[in-house]
Amino acid sequence: MDRQQVTQKIIATKVANKLRWADLATHFGQSKEWTTAALLGQMTFNREQADKAQALFGLTDEEAAWLQIVPYKGSLPSAVPTDPLIYRWYEIVSVYGTTIKELIHEEFGDGIMSAIDFSMDIQREADPKGDRVQVVLSGKFLPYKTY
Amino acid sequence: MDRQQVTQKIIATKVANKLRWADLATHFGQSKEWTTAALLGQMTFNREQADKAQALFGLTDEEAAWLQIVPYKGSLPSAVPTDPLIYRWYEIVSVYGTTIKELIHEEFGDGIMSAIDFSMDIQREADPKGDRVQVVLSGKFLPYKTY
Amino acid sequence: MDRQQVTQKIIATKVANKLRWADLATHFGQSKEWTTAALLGQMTFNREQADKAQALFGLTDEEAAWLQIVPYKGSLPSAVPTDPLIYRWYEIVSVYGTTIKELIHEEFGDGIMSAIDFSMDIQREADPKGDRVQVVLSGKFLPYKTY
Amino acid sequence: MDRQQVTQKIIATKVANKLRWADLATHFGQSKEWTTAALLGQMTFNREQADKAQALFGLTDEEAAWLQIVPYKGSLPSAVPTDPLIYRWYEIVSVYGTTIKELIHEEFGDGIMSAIDFSMDIQREADPKGDRVQVVLSGKFLPYKTY
Amino acid sequence: MDRQQVTQKIIATKVANKLRWADLATHFGQSKEWTTAALLGQMTFNREQADKAQALFGLTDEEAAWLQIVPYKGSLPSAVPTDPLIYRWYEIVSVYGTTIKELIHEEFGDGIMSAIDFSMDIQREADPKGDRVQVVLSGKFLPYKTY
Amino acid sequence: MDRQQVTQKIIATKVANKLRWADLATHFGQSKEWTTAALLGQMTFNREQADKAQALFGLTDEEAAWLQIVPYKGSLPSAVPTDPLIYRWYEIVSVYGTTIKELIHEEFGDGIMSAIDFSMDIQREADPKGDRVQVVLSGKFLPYKTY
Amino acid sequence: MDRQQVTQKIIATKVANKLRWADLATHFGQSKEWTTAALLGQMTFNREQADKAQALFGLTDEEAAWLQIVPYKGSLPSAVPTDPLIYRWYEIVSVYGTTIKELIHEEFGDGIMSAIDFSMDIQREADPKGDRVQVVLSGKFLPYKTY
Amino acid sequence: MDRQQVTQKIIATKVANKLRWADLATHFGQSKEWTTAALLGQMTFNREQADKAQALFGLTDEEAAWLQIVPYKGSLPSAVPTDPLIYRWYEIVSVYGTTIKELIHEEFGDGIMSAIDFSMDIQREADPKGDRVQVVLSGKFLPYKTY
Amino acid sequence: MDRQQVTQKIIATKVANKLRWADLATHFGQSKEWTTAALLGQMTFNREQADKAQALFGLTDEEAAWLQIVPYKGSLPSAVPTDPLIYRWYEIVSVYGTTIKELIHEEFGDGIMSAIDFSMDIQREADPKGDRVQVVLSGKFLPYKTY
Amino acid sequence: MDRQQVTQKIIATKVANKLRWADLATHFGQSKEWTTAALLGQMTFNREQADKAQALFGLTDEEAAWLQIVPYKGSLPSAVPTDPLIYRWYEIVSVYGTTIKELIHEEFGDGIMSAIDFSMDIQREADPKGDRVQVVLSGKFLPYKTY
Repeated sequence: MDRQQVTQKIIATKVANKLRWADLATHFGQSKEWTTAALLGQMTFNREQADKAQALFGLTDEEAAWLQIVPYKGSLPSAVPTDPLIYRWYEIVSVYGTTIKELIHEEFGDGIMSAIDFSMDIQREADPKGDRVQVVLSGKFLPYKTY
Repeated sequence: MDRQQVTQKIIATKVANKLRWADLATHFGQSKEWTTAALLGQMTFNREQADKAQALFGLTDEEAAWLQIVPYKGSLPSAVPTDPLIYRWYEIVSVYGTTIKELIHEEFGDGIMSAIDFSMDIQREADPKGDRVQVVLSGKFLPYKTY
Repeated sequence: MDRQQVTQKIIATKVANKLRWADLATHFGQSKEWTTAALLGQMTFNREQADKAQALFGLTDEEAAWLQIVPYKGSLPSAVPTDPLIYRWYEIVSVYGTTIKELIHEEFGDGIMSAIDFSMDIQREADPKGDRVQVVLSGKFLPYKTY
Repeated sequence: MDRQQVTQKIIATKVANKLRWADLATHFGQSKEWTTAALLGQMTFNREQADKAQALFGLTDEEAAWLQIVPYKGSLPSAVPTDPLIYRWYEIVSVYGTTIKELIHEEFGDGIMSAIDFSMDIQREADPKGDRVQVVLSGKFLPYKTY
Repeated sequence: MDRQQVTQKIIATKVANKLRWADLATHFGQSKEWTTAALLGQMTFNREQADKAQALFGLTDEEAAWLQIVPYKGSLPSAVPTDPLIYRWYEIVSVYGTTIKELIHEEFGDGIMSAIDFSMDIQREADPKGDRVQVVLSGKFLPYKTY
Repeated sequence: MDRQQVTQKIIATKVANKLRWADLATHFGQSKEWTTAALLGQMTFNREQADKAQALFGLTDEEAAWLQIVPYKGSLPSAVPTDPLIYRWYEIVSVYGTTIKELIHEEFGDGIMSAIDFSMDIQREADPKGDRVQVVLSGKFLPYKTY
Repeated sequence: MDRQQVTQKIIATKVANKLRWADLATHFGQSKEWTTAALLGQMTFNREQADKAQALFGLTDEEAAWLQIVPYKGSLPSAVPTDPLIYRWYEIVSVYGTTIKELIHEEFGDGIMSAIDFSMDIQREADPKGDRVQVVLSGKFLPYKTY
Repeated sequence: MDRQQVTQKIIATKVANKLRWADLATHFGQSKEWTTAALLGQMTFNREQADKAQALFGLTDEEAAWLQIVPYKGSLPSAVPTDPLIYRWYEIVSVYGTTIKELIHEEFGDGIMSAIDFSMDIQREADPKGDRVQVVLSGKFLPYKTY
Repeated sequence: MDRQQVTQKIIATKVANKLRWADLATHFGQSKEWTTAALLGQMTFNREQADKAQALFGLTDEEAAWLQIVPYKGSLPSAVPTDPLIYRWYEIVSVYGTTIKELIHEEFGDGIMSAIDFSMDIQREADPKGDRVQVVLSGKFLPYKTY
Repeated sequence: MDRQQVTQKIIATKVANKLRWADLATHFGQSKEWTTAALLGQMTFNREQADKAQALFGLTDEEAAWLQIVPYKGSLPSAVPTDPLIYRWYEIVSVYGTTIKELIHEEFGDGIMSAIDFSMDIQREADPKGDRVQVVLSGKFLPYKTY
């Protein structure tokens, strides 16, 4: 058994019981973004969160233990994603990558935007010409230093 | 001559003259995100914008004509980016890709967030524990339809 | 269980019962193109469509639930397809890709032809020198905008 | 000197002189699809066509000779295209590839749709919800035979 | 169940029963080249051929049905083959590919040698310095046309 | 200077002077297959052959010396060829590779068909349904031995 | 069942019974290099050798039959090996490849060192500064010929 | 200027002057294997060796300085070599890699054969059935240790 | 059965029993770095160590035998790692690789830092601005020699 | 002109003038690790550092301006490095990657070791059995948080 098998069981239960990510997030008392990433096998649960997951998805003790182990992260089956929704994000990185780099460096100097001390918020933005997806990404700036 | 050579000339002039993207954006009367992407060779200029660029960067008529031709887009030299700042964005796609997919589908149904009818806003977010980069992405939702 | 296993069951049943895509499309009341893509695991069923599929292919409730979940799309096992029929389409993209790009941009300006707001129609075109496959692709043009 | 250098000279002249593909096609007396592909270095010119191109683009005799040599075809710089317009076509192959395969085989049996005995027609399709790109592909069906 | 599993069953039966390809070809009344390719999962059987295969290899009705479905072709596990015999053929394409291209174009003009309307014959060629493998490939020439 | 530059000069001279491979082969007194491969940079010339090439293509002494050095072989720019004619040969290896392997092993036992002690003959095969390309490959069989 | 499964059974039995390759080679009456390669699934057994293997590893008749079928060769899971010992050999090819090529060509002319008519001998070479691995490779030189 | 340019100059001079590796090795007083690798840009020269090379190949002072800088090693243009002679060595790693690994581990335990404390000797081995290439590789065994 | 299956059983037992690597290292009397690498399937156990592992993880005799066989090393599923922690190390190689190379060569001359005669120590370094990970790598320098 | 050209000029000057990294570091008043990385094009200079570099390497004003622009980082020409010294580091990531991950997570919880807030120290460690390279890496631990 490994984390991937626990993830598959969680997803299968979610599909069979027609659970929603937003409701699961309320249940865990976390944002829907963190909750979804965690249940998809990308984040580590603490003891209390694992207990809730165990009850909700009917996990065994060993399965609940796996949730508390840091997983090998990376949720996609290929370096360039084939799924159209996820590819559009890869395309943003491909087309706008150097733009993002230039603007962050102009504002902050040499360094990166953290993908660890990071949060994400996905919302519907009503628009008469067709609703929009609005995503806010917030990451700490980490500067390179000389030494 | 091709667009890439015009881009290299623009960048070299920008470095030599110590111009800033934010000031260039004001000059073009567009957002700094669009202006940077355009000057980095990812967007198409209209006649008026190309004239401004010609004056500002000392371009020849042929170089200005290239700016009005739709370019072959894609700004990165490899499928998996090696630059640490840009890689962090690729990592977001890799780690959070399935999360983004699930949450958008739960809210909107099957479809994608457009990377064409799309805008981006990059801002500094002051934070006592270290300033943060805040990025807002807004893309129209495009549903799959049955036919 | 995941969508891929449901797809495999559907295909196996179709082969065992010698069903035809065109007849299945009539049964679902959709085009044969959408119906085939959906049964091959690339599209999402609504409730009513899933009920029809459940009856037709003898699916369990959980299997029918999977059909209503947006799938991870992408139907080919490698980046460059090995199957001769599908490769010919990849060859069209490889050889004519820049031609298609130039002609669409000349007619419409900078933007893309949507692969989401998109339909396809495949027909036999009788021809004394050997029948031809005629494929009509129709996708909404989505322009890039400045902002 | 090779064909690629002739192609670059043709493109640069086209940009500098603001020529349009549709007008060039009229000049050559061929479809705009064939003309564009040929000028982009994917097709072979006959003597008469090469003479027209020589006059139009100011080519030397050696450059005109290159146009009459069969080129090494393939117009894209990477196996998975990065340009958004061309990628959408690759995505169609990725998502709908098995669908196309199934429907052609159901109608015609085992074989392929030729990418050689092939023509393409790209048109604007007016639509109140936003104009569409309509592409008609027509390729001879070539059956596999037993022997 | 899919075609690959049927192929594996056929191969395993062939090995267990020590059958020879040449004898199987006689049984099917086809060339040994077509018969081998078909039993290795690259070709489609008609009804009569599938019946013979069912009897010979003890296939179920569903397995026999799979033989009549056009398979996803491609018989090698990697883009560059590792098996020394098959690699030698890939090497011929790599080293002599441009030679083959030049000579066919000089004789026939722009176009291809079909890999669909195609046959192959493999024979032993006795030679005092060591026997040789002689392979005759015959493919219809398909010209590119202007339109 | 390296062999590739000599090859480019030879090809450019051939195009400019409208020479044919078949005539060049007669001039060198070798098969058209060997002559083409050699002039495309895949084979090594002896002294006499290099002298002929020097006279014919106006090579310098150093260029003629390069022809007598064994080249780094491999004539294609990518692992999977993009040119349609050459791809069809790669497709033959991909689809029929295991068939070729099985039939050669059944006839000869374990070993390979040499791609070194090898010759190739490409001919037009007249056919009322469309002329065919006939290619005869002949390679020595080299057996694996136990030791 | 396929050859890979037979190989896995042989290896598992070897590990469970703590057999040594050198002793197995004596048992088969072949070199330890050939024996190891054969038991690892890279070589073909004759009838007598397969009988010995069947007795030694408790193989079924079908498993013994697989040993007499020419296998699909290639023993590594990736193009660039990750195992440090095997990588060092790949590194030798990468760093010294052109050196080996130059020296063999200087001595023998254009051609190759056969990897089929080939033997290998691996020995311990005692050395006070640390023992050395000595490997002798012997392959027939096969010249390219003109034709 | 970099080392690669110095290497190209050395090779071009060697070809123009028809020098032999064996004679160059005598001149440098080293084995022909080391000398060839060094002149092909894979090894570092000491002061005295660089002086000899400077005189022999007419190098400038800066070019001679580059010979004394440790180069970025790796002599092949692709991960899987296309040149037939070098490929045969890659094939040996691919087919016999696990055999080599098993036999070295059985004799020496866990560790590697060094590719650094390493020497190579390439000789002609006369053989009435066709001369053979004999290569002796000698590398220090380096054991993994527990700590 | 193979080593990978033994590794999976060890990890599963470790997770189920909530064992810590540091305690396991004490149990084996080795560093935590070696112990972790060994239990993750990268190192070879001696008899005594295998006995301890057998008792601790409830292994069968065959499973314990596998621990004493040198494994095929390499612990990551892709050439470029997707896990953020491991990627940061790959990034260090990518960004600082040439720096490390230059500094080691300046200090030691041409050669490498061994990854075999190698040890690693990972410690927490308390820091008021946020604790740091301190890693000490120590590898024997192995010089290239002329011969 | 771009940063890569400035880097090449710096390296060429360093080789021609036989400068040492350690002396350059003293000149810049930084560690030799940072100085080397910066001069190899991976780090950004401030005004004062750029002035020193301009004087030392005879750079033009534009070249000095490039040093103050954040570069596109990544110093290696391929995803898997071919240089033996750099490969050993890649091998450490490949073989010990999961070990490093497990030990850091056990000590710190889920998160990463920063490659930005990071320093490196490379020293000679005298050892009678052969000197060793000692490298100390120090990176801030950055935890994942729930939100």
